[in-house]
Parts: sequence; C-alpha cells; structure tokens
Amino acid sequence: MEIKMIITSITHIIEGKLLTETHITVNGWVKTKRTSKIGIIFISMNDGSCLENLQIIIKKNVYNNKNYISKLTTGCSIKVKGLIKYSPTTKQKYEIHATNITILGWVKDPSSYPISPKKHSMEYLRKIAHLRPRTNIIGAITRIRHKIIYKIHKFLNNHGFYWIPTPIITTTDTEGNGKMFRVSTLNKNHLLSSQNKKDFFKKDFFKKETFLTVSGQLNAESYSCALSRIYAFGPTFRAENSNTKKHLAEFWMLEPEIAFAKLNDIIKLAIDMLIYITKSLLDERDKDLFFFEKKKIKNKIKLNKLISSNFEQIDYKEAIKILKKSKINFKLPVHWGIDMSTEHEKYLTEKYFKTPIIITNYPKKIKPFYMRLNKDNKTVSSMDILMPGIGEIIGGSEREERIKILDKRIKESKLNKKKYWWYRDLRIYGTIPHAGFGMGIERLISFITGVTNIKDIVPFPRTPKNANF
Amino acid sequence: MEIKMIITSITHIIEGKLLTETHITVNGWVKTKRTSKIGIIFISMNDGSCLENLQIIIKKNVYNNKNYISKLTTGCSIKVKGLIKYSPTTKQKYEIHATNITILGWVKDPSSYPISPKKHSMEYLRKIAHLRPRTNIIGAITRIRHKIIYKIHKFLNNHGFYWIPTPIITTTDTEGNGKMFRVSTLNKNHLLSSQNKKDFFKKDFFKKETFLTVSGQLNAESYSCALSRIYAFGPTFRAENSNTKKHLAEFWMLEPEIAFAKLNDIIKLAIDMLIYITKSLLDERDKDLFFFEKKKIKNKIKLNKLISSNFEQIDYKEAIKILKKSKINFKLPVHWGIDMSTEHEKYLTEKYFKTPIIITNYPKKIKPFYMRLNKDNKTVSSMDILMPGIGEIIGGSEREERIKILDKRIKESKLNKKKYWWYRDLRIYGTIPHAGFGMGIERLISFITGVTNIKDIVPFPRTPKNANF
Repeated sequence: MEIKMIITSITHIIEGKLLTETHITVNGWVKTKRTSKIGIIFISMNDGSCLENLQIIIKKNVYNNKNYISKLTTGCSIKVKGLIKYSPTTKQKYEIHATNITILGWVKDPSSYPISPKKHSMEYLRKIAHLRPRTNIIGAITRIRHKIIYKIHKFLNNHGFYWIPTPIITTTDTEGNGKMFRVSTLNKNHLLSSQNKKDFFKKDFFKKETFLTVSGQLNAESYSCALSRIYAFGPTFRAENSNTKKHLAEFWMLEPEIAFAKLNDIIKLAIDMLIYITKSLLDERDKDLFFFEKKKIKNKIKLNKLISSNFEQIDYKEAIKILKKSKINFKLPVHWGIDMSTEHEKYLTEKYFKTPIIITNYPKKIKPFYMRLNKDNKTVSSMDILMPGIGEIIGGSEREERIKILDKRIKESKLNKKKYWWYRDLRIYGTIPHAGFGMGIERLISFITGVTNIKDIVPFPRTPKNANF
Repeated sequence: MEIKMIITSITHIIEGKLLTETHITVNGWVKTKRTSKIGIIFISMNDGSCLENLQIIIKKNVYNNKNYISKLTTGCSIKVKGLIKYSPTTKQKYEIHATNITILGWVKDPSSYPISPKKHSMEYLRKIAHLRPRTNIIGAITRIRHKIIYKIHKFLNNHGFYWIPTPIITTTDTEGNGKMFRVSTLNKNHLLSSQNKKDFFKKDFFKKETFLTVSGQLNAESYSCALSRIYAFGPTFRAENSNTKKHLAEFWMLEPEIAFAKLNDIIKLAIDMLIYITKSLLDERDKDLFFFEKKKIKNKIKLNKLISSNFEQIDYKEAIKILKKSKINFKLPVHWGIDMSTEHEKYLTEKYFKTPIIITNYPKKIKPFYMRLNKDNKTVSSMDILMPGIGEIIGGSEREERIKILDKRIKESKLNKKKYWWYRDLRIYGTIPHAGFGMGIERLISFITGVTNIKDIVPFPRTPKNANF
C-alpha cells in the first residue's frame, strides 16, 4: 500500500497543524547537523516559513548505504520524507523521524560557505545581500515586514480606502527641493555630443526631462478629490548624498489621502493604524519579535507599551519651549522657526516624554507649499509623529484647498505655477477640505524590530555609490 | 437637545448599513440637480465610495433664504446634513431628506467644467487624467483595481507568501533585451561635456550606469531560495517605443516565486488565484462590474464563464499544429520556433478554444536564459496564460537550478556571466528546484473590466512622449 504523503512547510508542523504520525514531505536547508554516539544523525533544517528549525532524526537503517547523508553541511538543500512525532526534549514540541532523505543541492566548498553557522556582522551580511535572507535575523525582518505591509492593506481596505498606483516617472517635484534622479533613454552618443544644448531633452523618451518621484501625494490628491479615501503605496526616491543609518535613495512610502478630513482625523487614522499593526504583530509574529528580544533589543516591551500608551500630542511652539527649558547645549540652537534635528527629536521622545509624540502646527517656512495655512499666517496645519529611537516616521497635513492661498504659497516657494496647473484645477472645480500623511515603511520596520540601520531593513539597499545586486 | 450626527460615506447608506431615520452628515460632489414643479430640489451626489449616487431631497423650507443652493452645478462639493428615509421610487432604496446644506467648493465657470454630465470619449478623458476619476467609468476601474490587488495580497498571504520589495533601481537586465531607462543624477554640464568618455558614469550617483528594473524576478529568487514562498509586487519599466493599446512604459507586476515547485505547481497557483480574484469581484464589486456590462462589455458573463471553465492546457508544439491546420494566412507565417504574435493568440483563445489557455514548453530561443531547459534540449519548462481579448497576462517557468546548464544558457544568450555572480551563487550553495511567474496587473484589469486601452486602466499612464501629470 502506498502511503499518502503531505507536502508541507515547516511552520505548519511547528504550529501543530498536522497530527502526529502523519506522513509528510518537507523541503528546506540544513542549518546544523550532528551525529550521536550511537550513530543517529540529527539535522536541524529551515525553510524560511518561520524562524524555528525543524528537528530531523535519521536512524542508521535510513542512512545505511547512503554515506552521502553524513556529508551534509550547513546550507545544503534536502527533501525529507518521514513521520511527525512528539519530541521527547523540551527544545521543540515536534520532530520528524525520517524514512528517506534526498539531497537537492550541495554546498560547493563548504568551508568557504558565506553563511556559515557562526555569527556574522551586519556589515558583512550587507556584502552578501543575496544570501543573507538565509540568516535568522534577515528572515525575521522579512516576515515582519510582510505582516506589517499586509496589515496596512487590510486596515485601509477595511476603512474604505482604495489603492492608487501613482506614477513613478514624473515631471513634478512634490517637495520642491530638487534632489531627484533623472530618467532618460538618451544614448551615450547623444549625451556626449554638446550640440543640442537648447533642446537637450526633446529627443528623450518622454520628449522632456523626467525624474523618479519623491512622493505620490499630488497625484494621490487628484484621486481623493473624487473617490474620497485612497492611498498610494509605492517606491519613492531621493538623490541625497547622505550616508546615514536612516537614509536610503530608494524606499517605500504609504500615503493615505482623505477627503473632507481635518488634521485630527489623520492623526486618529495614523494612531489607530499603528496600534492595529502592532497588535497584529504581537499576535501573529510573536516568535520573530522574540528573536529581537533575545538580541537584547527590548522591542516587545516597547511594542506592548506602544499599544497601551497615549501618544503625546503637542504644538510645535510648545515643543520649542520644552527644548529651551532643557538647558541642553544643542548643536543647532533652539528658537521658534528651526527645523528640528535628530538631537531635538531624541530629547523629546527619549528623555522628556519617553513615548511616541505628535508635533503639530509647524512654521510654514520649513514645510512644503501644499500644507494648509493656519489663521496665524505663520504656521501650517501639519503633524509629524516621532518615535523613540528612529525619529520621524509619519508626516502629514491638511492640504491647502483655497486656490488664492495656494497660489500665494506656490509663489513664496519660488515654484512655477504653470507646472501645477492640474493640481490647481482640484481647487477650482469643487474644492474640498482634505488631509493626508506619508509614512516611511522602512523606518516603521526599523522601529518595530529595533534594527537601527535601515540598510538591513530592505533586501537590496540603494545608497550613494551602491546599487549592487 | 443636540442631535447626534453620524459622518458617513455614501456606500454605507446605499448598502443599508445605517437605519432609516438616522441623522447623518455626508459629503460629496453634485452629479446632477433638478427642481420639481412644486419647488423641491433633487440632488444626485457621489463621493466615489461606490458607483451609485445618493439622492438628496431639499424642501423649500430648507433652502429658503439660501438662494445659492439653487445655483449648484455638476462638480460642486457639498456637505449635507439630513435623515435617511426609504425612497418611494424604485430607482433607489434610500434617500436623504436634507436639513442643512453647506457648499464646500464651487465650480469656476460651470459651462466650461471639463467633467460635464454629458458623455465624454476616453481619448478626451485621458487629457484630463486629474479629473477623470470623477467619472463613473474611471471610478469603477479604480474600485475594481483596488479589490483585485487587495485580494492578490490576501490570497498570497493565506498561502504563506511573503512580500519582497525588490529594487527598482538596478544594474541588471533581467530579460536581456536592453530596453531600459537610465537613472542618473549627472548634471547637464557633465552631460554636455565630452571629456569623460571612458569613465562617463563614474561620477554618477551610484558610481556606475544604473537603470529602472524590467522585472524583480532575479532578486525575488534570492529570497525564495531562503524563505521558500515569496512575491514581488511593484512597478516595472520598459523603454519600448510601442504606442499600442497593450503597452505602457511603466506598469505593475506581480511576481511570485516558489521554492521546490514544478511547472504544474505554478500553473495551479495562477489558476487558483485568478478564480479567487474573479469570485471576490463578483461577490463584492458586483455593481461596478455591472456598469461595464451596461456598456455592452459582456464581462460578467465572461467572468462567470471563467470561474467555471477549464483552462485549456496545451504544449507549444500542439499550438503550432493547431495554427497550421487553421489554414489562415497569418502575417507571421507559422512554424515551430516562432514567437507567437497577437494574431496567433487571438485565433487560439477566441476562435479555436474560446476560453483562457495555457501554453507550455516554449522553444528556448524565444525565452530568457533563466528558464529551465527540458530534456529535449530545445524547449524550456515554461508556461504562458493567454486570455481572450487581451492575450498573454501571465508568463512563468521553472528556473534553471543546474549551474552548468545555467552558465551555458548565459553564454548562449550572449550575457556577461560575471554580472550574474550572485544569481549563480544561488545555484552553487544549496540549489533547489523552483519556479515562478509574472503577471501584468494592468492587463488583468483590462481583461476583467473589458476596457481595452491600457491607458485607461492606470491613473496616469506613461507612454512614449507622454509623462504628463
């Protein structure tokens, strides 16, 4: 009689979704291997479906005449057929008693396998970004990232938001700071000929100079001014020459835009979403979170605190007062009007409030033209959410819906009004009060995992001088 | 006594989620307005949350002394307070008896409002891409697109897949055809100086020539070779000078990659996913689908057929035989080895099988280097899914996991082996059989809605000579 084999993933076995004595086939990579004194081979294998490894017991009668099994090393890929049994040890609940092992792929020159079982530095792992997903830490980050993103989609879907694929290639500089990547198909010969100075980009693919987007917001607004609740979720780009732990040239942003909303509505949405995500992670990716805990990153305590904490909300001018009162000798002196830097944010979130904080009503001069001017004529109806450890992860505002004031702000910001003709149209034809925010996905993941270098948060980071893999 | 007002969206009222006699506030845009003989104003308003408009009844006592209400035109934005009542007509189930109307935004020069209530051509609407989401057709496409994407994430999450943000800026040409956009920060002066011929890109942001990705697959594979089930979902780019109904320079792709999978596994996954999406749409976006039906696009019949139909699966060589037998005088003559064009696909899906079809085992010469070579040495273990009306929407394959054969294929394809060092590593260290596919999101939406020009499927299309908005 042929035995029915269930092909399964390790997470199903570990979670007890299959009964003991079930015949299963499971595939994965060898993490470690040891042979007991009485000749039983123990293989710890992983398939990335969860953090935990599956214990495989191979008795002599299985590997007899199959000497190659004893030659397995870390990183080899195998197919295991066997039975699920309760494990007699406390280390794991279930183990597999193998009836057959097939080797799918060897590791060439095992002594030089880049992902040996020993500890590797994060710097080293960045150089082998194609193999580092095989490590516990990058695996855990990947599963947590997925859960965060999935829960964001779910949360927004449940709240009546529609996803909008805002364009990546654009002619618009949303933030008005000009740090953009050019997109072009002009060939080298054209580039190297100096004759076409005037109409340089006329021969380009789009017949004009185009760039990679820094934000989908302006385009997203045109959809919120029709479908009310929408969100952009996509990659954004900054050609900034900053080599810090917090900056990437390419990163993903979530940008919800809500029609008929005020500042408090988006603050509530942002907090509700952050708490929903955090609760889901504590419920559903507990083991992956605990992995960081073990590394002395106290993120579970932090996350539990987050979901029960009040997000402290203060006005920018109040924040400035607190900083002044601190009597600390900040590198950037504190006065009303400054664009707070990391040192200020750190003091507020980590020293003074010891909790996430929301700062509202920033001076208009340090914020983009599209933020709604307050009655004081000096500040805009804006908010930033700052997290201990990572700083700003969310920035949002009411959008200026009054055409006259918008035009004034465009002029003040020295932007070309003509270029924003379609954005202005949204204020000319049935304008509405509306608001939205942007959230940097990588920074949120950094905050949640406690992994502080953002280059370890994305699979293949793009930074100055680096676009490898 | 103050009455408690519930701020709600139109879809909640239309779907009967609130009781009649509930006091509500609802915001939106005027679609049409008429005044009855006895002076009652009827406003049909929409907020984009659903296709249906909400009927607002404004009696004389409400708009008395508020003459401006009678001046409302299509496109004006309003805030309505009122009571939910059963509607006496069969046109709708519920209507609102207004107690107060606030005008949020007028339409400047109503006679020239670009989205007047009359019928507009799709060509015309493309020129006002920032306002067209206010039309029924673009609204319906947007809501359907969201549901499709959300259900894709849900389906893959439920099947144990993790999302991977594969890089957008890359040095790798996955498809090996070179139609890529360059990404650069070199300034015009550098571009116009012809002195740096040799080290032209050394001064660029990434210190080398970089491009926009044509596919996230190779990077995705490095994660499936560690986490088993993963998917890329992001924008991809082709700098092809094709101005057809089916081509965009920027489009979104779904790319699942599965470790330990064979061709039949990904065919099953693709079909299961398509059926799951289609069922969800029929259940949850019925009205939006019906809108296209009314436009004589028989998509509901088509979709109902899809979920019950067998996807016909045939070998490439069988498909060639069928085409030969047809005795049709195709522009591109049929023989084993051709890369089928639209005319061939149309014959197979629309004339011969009259159903979606899956074609397997294409000649290696017309497919990329990474597809797994079959035993015949002539074909690769690949599959395309073709839909009536739109043609190919899915293309997938087993991935060549044998390093020697991969190297041979890289050489045959005249690619530089060194550039693929990290991709080759995946075959050197614990290689595994694996497979995956790519699905063009816009083409799927085009198939489902029956809207045939892909420029109407994306919010802001990027095509040769066009990167407006």
